Amino acid sequence: MTSTTMTVATPVAPSRGALRPLGLDQVQITGGFWGDRQAVNGAVTLAHIEHWMEREGWIGNFDAAAGRAPSAGRQGREFSDSEVYKLVEAMAWEIGRTHDADLESRFLALVARISAAQEPDGYLNTQFGRRGQRPRYSDLEAGHELYCYGHLFQAAVARVRTSPGAEDDLLDVARRAADHVTATFGPDGIASVCGHPEIEVALAELGRETGEGRYLDQAALFVARRGHGVLRDIEWGRSYFQDDIPVRDATVLRGHAVRANYLAAGAVDVAVETSDDALLQALVTQWENTVARRTYVTGGQGSHHMDEAFGDDWVLPPDRAYSETCAGIGSVMFAWRLLLAQGLPRYADLVERTLYNVVATSPSHEGNAFFYTNTLHQRTPGTVPPPDIASTRALSSLRAPWFAVSCCPPNVARTLASLAAYVATTDDDGLQIYEYAPARIRALLTDGRRVEVDVETAYPADGLVRVRVATTEKSPWSLTLRVPVWADGATLAQPDAAEPRTVEPGTVTVTRQFNAGDVVELRLPLLPRVLRGDSRIDAVRGCVAVEQGPRVLCLESVDLDSAGLGTDDVADIRIDVGAGLQVVGGQVRATLVRAATTEAAWPYQDASLLETGAGGTELDQARTGQVALTPYHDWANRGPSTMRVWIPTA
Amino acid sequence: MTSTTMTVATPVAPSRGALRPLGLDQVQITGGFWGDRQAVNGAVTLAHIEHWMEREGWIGNFDAAAGRAPSAGRQGREFSDSEVYKLVEAMAWEIGRTHDADLESRFLALVARISAAQEPDGYLNTQFGRRGQRPRYSDLEAGHELYCYGHLFQAAVARVRTSPGAEDDLLDVARRAADHVTATFGPDGIASVCGHPEIEVALAELGRETGEGRYLDQAALFVARRGHGVLRDIEWGRSYFQDDIPVRDATVLRGHAVRANYLAAGAVDVAVETSDDALLQALVTQWENTVARRTYVTGGQGSHHMDEAFGDDWVLPPDRAYSETCAGIGSVMFAWRLLLAQGLPRYADLVERTLYNVVATSPSHEGNAFFYTNTLHQRTPGTVPPPDIASTRALSSLRAPWFAVSCCPPNVARTLASLAAYVATTDDDGLQIYEYAPARIRALLTDGRRVEVDVETAYPADGLVRVRVATTEKSPWSLTLRVPVWADGATLAQPDAAEPRTVEPGTVTVTRQFNAGDVVELRLPLLPRVLRGDSRIDAVRGCVAVEQGPRVLCLESVDLDSAGLGTDDVADIRIDVGAGLQVVGGQVRATLVRAATTEAAWPYQDASLLETGAGGTELDQARTGQVALTPYHDWANRGPSTMRVWIPTA
Repeated sequence: MTSTTMTVATPVAPSRGALRPLGLDQVQITGGFWGDRQAVNGAVTLAHIEHWMEREGWIGNFDAAAGRAPSAGRQGREFSDSEVYKLVEAMAWEIGRTHDADLESRFLALVARISAAQEPDGYLNTQFGRRGQRPRYSDLEAGHELYCYGHLFQAAVARVRTSPGAEDDLLDVARRAADHVTATFGPDGIASVCGHPEIEVALAELGRETGEGRYLDQAALFVARRGHGVLRDIEWGRSYFQDDIPVRDATVLRGHAVRANYLAAGAVDVAVETSDDALLQALVTQWENTVARRTYVTGGQGSHHMDEAFGDDWVLPPDRAYSETCAGIGSVMFAWRLLLAQGLPRYADLVERTLYNVVATSPSHEGNAFFYTNTLHQRTPGTVPPPDIASTRALSSLRAPWFAVSCCPPNVARTLASLAAYVATTDDDGLQIYEYAPARIRALLTDGRRVEVDVETAYPADGLVRVRVATTEKSPWSLTLRVPVWADGATLAQPDAAEPRTVEPGTVTVTRQFNAGDVVELRLPLLPRVLRGDSRIDAVRGCVAVEQGPRVLCLESVDLDSAGLGTDDVADIRIDVGAGLQVVGGQVRATLVRAATTEAAWPYQDASLLETGAGGTELDQARTGQVALTPYHDWANRGPSTMRVWIPTA
Repeated sequence: MTSTTMTVATPVAPSRGALRPLGLDQVQITGGFWGDRQAVNGAVTLAHIEHWMEREGWIGNFDAAAGRAPSAGRQGREFSDSEVYKLVEAMAWEIGRTHDADLESRFLALVARISAAQEPDGYLNTQFGRRGQRPRYSDLEAGHELYCYGHLFQAAVARVRTSPGAEDDLLDVARRAADHVTATFGPDGIASVCGHPEIEVALAELGRETGEGRYLDQAALFVARRGHGVLRDIEWGRSYFQDDIPVRDATVLRGHAVRANYLAAGAVDVAVETSDDALLQALVTQWENTVARRTYVTGGQGSHHMDEAFGDDWVLPPDRAYSETCAGIGSVMFAWRLLLAQGLPRYADLVERTLYNVVATSPSHEGNAFFYTNTLHQRTPGTVPPPDIASTRALSSLRAPWFAVSCCPPNVARTLASLAAYVATTDDDGLQIYEYAPARIRALLTDGRRVEVDVETAYPADGLVRVRVATTEKSPWSLTLRVPVWADGATLAQPDAAEPRTVEPGTVTVTRQFNAGDVVELRLPLLPRVLRGDSRIDAVRGCVAVEQGPRVLCLESVDLDSAGLGTDDVADIRIDVGAGLQVVGGQVRATLVRAATTEAAWPYQDASLLETGAGGTELDQARTGQVALTPYHDWANRGPSTMRVWIPTA
């Protein structure tokens, strides 16, 4: 384990661990897949979110709380303060990324309105504690007060790390609130936790940033308290907020999937900072079991609609997959922290899968509409949600501009704006690159050596990743590249080798005295892959999914017609796996057949009749065609469509 | 169509239609499968329900409303009045069935407490309209006031039909309430409907019973109003309470499955009484599409947990099947009314399927614990709910004694107590028997002829149904027996034929001048049947279900061990369909194999590797055994177990 001494512009900066993260000050994404999305996020999404939060009165709640606006009753849900904080955090990252002056002034205005609402003792929440409101902390199960602080703290950390000399008082606001929390919920205070974990991960980071040991101690205390039934039981059981089993005793994530991942991320921070190896190992086990048995092929997590929760092992139905966008982001937070702690590339594999297939799926191409949930099978085309109505439903079949519960849009925004912080790390020996994008990386090792490279790639459209060294150092250092777990047959070309060599999935390291201009080329095979699910995932039995590179593909009904496969319905489509997959002009094309389904009065028929062809489904070989599969993250950008990721085999 | 003139002790007595129902005064179930359940219902369940309703304060709410008890705040959910009315209805049927004096006195005491709470203008609800309560009808979407009246009316109808000379004032209470409703919600009143349909079916029946045309008119008005967006939109959409599409325009049931079925049942009543053939045909279409695409093999309906609602076509996942017990009862109500209207045996097929596999599944063998939901796949054994705690969760893995929302137990109780009303019908030509149980049937045709038979059978344990004529009539009449849709190879023996003849599924009619002692014998084949689901039901692809007679069977993990198939886990079990099914001592036994599942870090693997045996699941032929399948309605009566109805094939 190595030790970090300098602050970097990253959401998570452990003081120890296998790897040190690089921040936005050291890594810039310069274009490509993620660069495009960062540009849309900055140009459209942030203003879109700010507009809706003003319109819905969620920002105005702070004015009312500060007594500066006529109060017409508080607006929005009990956690709406947190959405504003996530917007502030997203703005902070974006300012760090672009130094946009207009955004800076909007940021300052927003922070001033928040700051004005803080009580003299540090308490800050627009929903509780004032006349006509419920008392502070009178509803820890559902009130979300501590949860909101968590997002405030993360925003403050983002701000101070991206704009260390700025004159706003966001960090002071956060510190006053954190001091209030430690005084109120410390060892002699209220012996409970928040119904929605989040303050744990945020207090740990605020502690790292400020050096205040009390903040980390409080995070550790919250982690230790949970799981002992300190919250009231609810209809969905205490597993909903992970108050059923102590974190160090649990073996798998369960309950509300966002809560579970946020808690796990915070617990990793606590374990790392307190050198609690048993706690860390418990979290590793939870991660392993969750990934092996409770994660969709997209990386999405959480299959229940009712409680937005993980199901039992193997309960991963594609249709009505919940796979909340925020749960995917929480999973990235959890896995990234384990990567920093342990340095194992498997964590980065999941981060990549989740970024491409959950986080990138949520926003529309235009950046002004979002998926809250991310189903893997859409059976009805649905309708386009109106652009001027906040959806009351998380379950829109197409992306909606806003939601009554709108946690996902600002969560996506802060993640995209800070995405450069998930690209690369360092250790004492050199640089590790975990996620591939065109990038400029300028890092210092602890001994002062400059480790500077530029990454050139069209990934994931192309498998070639070229890393060009920008500086000459007088001593050898190591460049480590992740070889994704799916990249069988990857090759590496390096300056001192005549021929590329085959490299195995995991990581590959080149150690040498690099010269400026040296190029290391990793070539990742992008042949599409056909996957089957574990036989215990009943819902995908007899189906395959197709992936290419880091992306899961899907079949969208809008693509059927051109192949003569007719209507907008994907229910009757089968894939001819034996015919293979063709890559034409970058598109993956599959051979599909439409089944001629018999309508029956009762859908359960004698199996022997079906087997002798007397009933049921037959394939209409005349209706066979090659159809392009779409990257899942692109689906539903061409109007109403039915869609499936898992396609039954012919 | 024929016309009914006399009242019979049945929940539904249309004035016209293909068939006339027989009531508890004409049909007695004398033993067997349903007789046993009726006995437990009467001896245990009714008192169990009454105990819990007192304990939870739901009956006490009426005392408080009447001002006779200190009010410590109203207890229970907004619809708890309706549960008390369902208990009253169940008691009324049971008194009609058994003439139990103790039950009669408990019934009278309960009715007196309800009656005392009625306002002078007929309004009756313990939740609204008093000081400190919300105003009457201020929350039609969720307040359930009209819904509660519906159950009151059904209770009153049950009472007057089973105990026509009784001196309680339940019918008067109902009439005053109904008069209040027609005055308040009539053509010039509040132009809306209740968020939970139920009053429609109840008003129609109260109108039939009392001859008050206004009640039927009001039912018709409620049916006509719904579907035009008269209720506020909610998170789950107006389809939740069927306010999205007018009843006569809809093509399939959708939204909350209990609401959908109750509404459809009431709409059939309206269509029949008003000779509205277009409306009736719309309901027939809805029934056909719902049965063909949205019904579990058990007859269960509704796959969503979140909104207790129907899913899209083909969304019928066995694990976490919601299949609420009350939705099954609502489906029986709907199908039975269509049977009376049209005389087609397909409706009785669904009634039978649902009675055996949903209604009979809910109560424990002891009659003091219940399933609220009826999953078709239980992945974790769960724990036995404590007998003295009302479950906050509908999702118990084992039957619970009571629920915070306890609609199902009294609904089961009233259905079991009135079950004799679903056995047989008459028309001008004779008697039809639709459900088979040991029974005594004493009916009069409209021309005064006595049609009296005794049914002797051990069905469904045995396929022989013997109908013995009890009276001699001087003219021929027809005895019609339903041949279930699954009963290929059924045979019928009748007095004037030397040999039994094969009869086709549907109905078979014997018309002759019967003599007392004549016997007609229907022999239904009980060879187990192996079924596959429509290929569009993705969740059961590659699986089979097994049925025997009217019963769906399941695999329960407690039966695996004796066959050397090990643990309590059914996830890795496959069925060898080729080995056939054996019937040993009445038990159906299947040949099962345990798969040797490989644990993988990621559950999605390259299909080509799986196909060449390099990974994934292989069958452990050494671990093969014959295992008894259990009738689904019996499952979870032997402690915690995992279970599945749909078993993957080897």
